[in-house]
Amino acid sequence: MTTLYIAPGACSLGTQVVVRELQLPIDIVKVPLRQADSPIHRINPLGRVPALQLDNGTVITENTAILPYLADLKPEAGLIPAAGTVERALVQSWLGFGSAEIHAGAFRIVNRGGSWVSDEGAQQELKDFGKSQLRKSFTHVNNALQNNTWITGDNFTIADAYLGVFVRWLAKFGNEFDDLQQLRRFRDAYEARPSVIAALEFESAKG
Amino acid sequence: MTTLYIAPGACSLGTQVVVRELQLPIDIVKVPLRQADSPIHRINPLGRVPALQLDNGTVITENTAILPYLADLKPEAGLIPAAGTVERALVQSWLGFGSAEIHAGAFRIVNRGGSWVSDEGAQQELKDFGKSQLRKSFTHVNNALQNNTWITGDNFTIADAYLGVFVRWLAKFGNEFDDLQQLRRFRDAYEARPSVIAALEFESAKG
Repeated sequence: MTTLYIAPGACSLGTQVVVRELQLPIDIVKVPLRQADSPIHRINPLGRVPALQLDNGTVITENTAILPYLADLKPEAGLIPAAGTVERALVQSWLGFGSAEIHAGAFRIVNRGGSWVSDEGAQQELKDFGKSQLRKSFTHVNNALQNNTWITGDNFTIADAYLGVFVRWLAKFGNEFDDLQQLRRFRDAYEARPSVIAALEFESAKG
Repeated sequence: MTTLYIAPGACSLGTQVVVRELQLPIDIVKVPLRQADSPIHRINPLGRVPALQLDNGTVITENTAILPYLADLKPEAGLIPAAGTVERALVQSWLGFGSAEIHAGAFRIVNRGGSWVSDEGAQQELKDFGKSQLRKSFTHVNNALQNNTWITGDNFTIADAYLGVFVRWLAKFGNEFDDLQQLRRFRDAYEARPSVIAALEFESAKG
């Protein structure tokens, strides 16, 4: 059976949401991150989630790859437009933006930058820089949501399943990004979806 | 006419390579980066390349989106496997890894980290950290190339067109990464392709 490896609180929430939206027969397994004895290291040598292991053992990593792969298994669900269309390119562009600019280029600096330098002042500067990158990136997201229910239009796609994770992560900064008002509306709509409710319940369940 | 905006020395080299591999009727325009009066700001509010502007004005950004879009215009060229296949997911995974882990998560820290903190020691620590991330990421690439001509097998795909850019960027570190021997072979094969030769000539031409 195909298995999706996830970790509570990680960006694999978006992957789990897509599995649930499509009701795919995929086993979802929780693994700890940043632990030498975590089973994830046997699946993905990079030690990261999400990782999708297929029946034949092939492992697919990166949300920008896993999400289109899953959505293409049930194209009739409309989570991804057909290959060759501009609409698909725009969905894929938001996935790429989320992965490179929001996750690696902003959240990672805020969350981990403190361990990259020893000077306390520099640690704070890195955190501030990461936050300025968050503001820049989320302003771009907020602008795109001005005239749309979801990030590319009226239909929920894999881009929304993914960006919803990062919009939720902003909550840790209290009201600092509240001026980006479309994000609040987007988050409410995201968290109201049965797939998201079920995915969050699965993340927080014991065992 | 569709227009691809690029900048010499930027990751848009891979995009240009794909346009030339496919011999697509796309106008390629050079723009300066990090200049307030660069025309790129009218095309892409993020001020980044590559940016692909279609006939109807729609602008697609992110190599993880532009490269599959271009390759899907001529699927018979084999630069991208069909939607729904595992092979396509693996190509897309390398695009995502290149964009998030190699570009945003490693090169950007090496190249720009010095401007994020004021302490000189911290600037050096950031550079060292970025280089350790480069080593981790390129070891992963080098391992994948042990048994393959190109990153996913015997066929050149958009993943190779993109990763070739980053492998070339390693040259600025002299022989520091020479122990990753498959990268040298890969780079030689990459730079021997007529598409790459033409793209580099276009980048360095005046005007």
